[in-house]
Amino acid sequence: MATEFQLIERFLSPFRTRGPGVILGPGDDCAILRPSPGTDLCVTTDAVVEAVHFDPGFFRPQDIGHKALAVNLSDLASMGARPRWFVCSVACRSSDQPRLAGIARGMAALAERSGILLAGGNFTRADTLSLHITAAGEVPQGTALRRDRARPGDRLYVTGTLGDAALGLALGQSGKRGARLRRQLRPEPRMRAGLLARRFASAAIDISDGLLQDLGHVLDASRVGATVDALRLPLSPACRASKASLDLALGGGEDYELLLCVPPARARSFERALSAAGEKVTAIGEIVRGRRLAVLHAPPPKASGFDHFRARARR
Amino acid sequence: MATEFQLIERFLSPFRTRGPGVILGPGDDCAILRPSPGTDLCVTTDAVVEAVHFDPGFFRPQDIGHKALAVNLSDLASMGARPRWFVCSVACRSSDQPRLAGIARGMAALAERSGILLAGGNFTRADTLSLHITAAGEVPQGTALRRDRARPGDRLYVTGTLGDAALGLALGQSGKRGARLRRQLRPEPRMRAGLLARRFASAAIDISDGLLQDLGHVLDASRVGATVDALRLPLSPACRASKASLDLALGGGEDYELLLCVPPARARSFERALSAAGEKVTAIGEIVRGRRLAVLHAPPPKASGFDHFRARARR
Repeated sequence: MATEFQLIERFLSPFRTRGPGVILGPGDDCAILRPSPGTDLCVTTDAVVEAVHFDPGFFRPQDIGHKALAVNLSDLASMGARPRWFVCSVACRSSDQPRLAGIARGMAALAERSGILLAGGNFTRADTLSLHITAAGEVPQGTALRRDRARPGDRLYVTGTLGDAALGLALGQSGKRGARLRRQLRPEPRMRAGLLARRFASAAIDISDGLLQDLGHVLDASRVGATVDALRLPLSPACRASKASLDLALGGGEDYELLLCVPPARARSFERALSAAGEKVTAIGEIVRGRRLAVLHAPPPKASGFDHFRARARR
Repeated sequence: MATEFQLIERFLSPFRTRGPGVILGPGDDCAILRPSPGTDLCVTTDAVVEAVHFDPGFFRPQDIGHKALAVNLSDLASMGARPRWFVCSVACRSSDQPRLAGIARGMAALAERSGILLAGGNFTRADTLSLHITAAGEVPQGTALRRDRARPGDRLYVTGTLGDAALGLALGQSGKRGARLRRQLRPEPRMRAGLLARRFASAAIDISDGLLQDLGHVLDASRVGATVDALRLPLSPACRASKASLDLALGGGEDYELLLCVPPARARSFERALSAAGEKVTAIGEIVRGRRLAVLHAPPPKASGFDHFRARARR
């Protein structure tokens, strides 16, 4: 059986750990990192746990590694932050060791594409495989996109399409594969859209718990209301074909798209900038005075959003 | 049963989350942190897992929270870093919820004393209670204490006393309490000693895996050897009274003392500065040319140090 040090060495091998701002990478008690002058750090921590966040029945090791980093990068994207460094705390059984190489490869491939460097990590024994990542990105001081700055009149936009990850989960659980399953296995954090949106948006959040629940967080934090038009929600053809399309789009969760609030005066230039970069955004409603969230052209919503401590279904 | 959001709110309640450098604390997708100009960040991540790092039979919830943060603060101390911010990813069962308030209190008390602010966190469901913390501290650029800068002739020092945490673990497992057990339950990270040592030391490491193993890391990284005099190891009276005192001191682990390498020209001023601050340090040997680690006045060491993936005993 491998020692802790051998495990660390093997896990690190596919990663780039040297680069700008890394004075000292993995191997000491701490990494030594040098932030860019004049920037704020955006810092998030998120975990994926076997049988809670991924079903080993249809998640390959590479998918697990990808997703563990992707959920953190999505948080950086929603702040408009440029990814810089992350650390990864791994808890696993001895029997998980064969999977670790694939997990590292999936994580390293996304890290490389996203320009984020692995600065450190930790291995520990546990009865369940879990990956706890802390990621940091940079923004020019005072420019991070927060959820508490939405203003009445702001246009509401979402990136990509909604509901596909939840649809993919249902497919995976019934043993089917396909493009929707990929949205569940390999969510693509909207890094570029977030970076561009920072120049235009007043507020943003990533849609991890479902559109309505995450929009609710923006409304609570900003003390405003919103109107969403269900007919304008961007749905993939596969999601549109589902009987539950509206439930999936409004409450499915795990899409890791961005919800963006853009003042009307900047809406046209925002749309042009995103379109020029090949980033799909769709206007779905607007921020209003008051605290009410109204969904037009939809039946009253059922309970929506994913709560780890209430969820009954295994996911 | 509490929702994820209620859990987060309750967990946060004993913590100070506002302060210098915190532009935005917990509650958004990311915390927004502003590093001090001209500093490097020292970043570490470490986890405590039930039945691996703490035995719920004698660790109270407050002890668990204390230890989870202490092991990270010890890493900051060994770099000579001033603690700034940390994030905490909690994985737990629903049945762990009653323990979370105590865990938060123990963690918050140490955070307050250490001047580190909780910037964010995450809760997830899992079959085993574990706490994964990432902590960041600051040093003036280029001044962090690394393990790869020891030079032949450097004097070797350790803070505090050695072997007490391992002795405490044995006491706890046999149902006894006392001062030694406290060293296991409530390790005190040597923040002040680390900060002071940064002005004098060439290299440092914290002793988490046992003196010999951690000294070995310094020697490997710095490509040097060392001589340690077993008769000079600082032992508490209780440890000295144990038949296994030398094994405990050389290989017991979890002491979270600092091992410091200080050039001879600075040794006297180092000792004076630490003594003036009430921080006990003991000279135990020196760094030598070559790659050999010799322990004088001791039988040849047995296998030492704690390896999570090889450990057979439950600890």
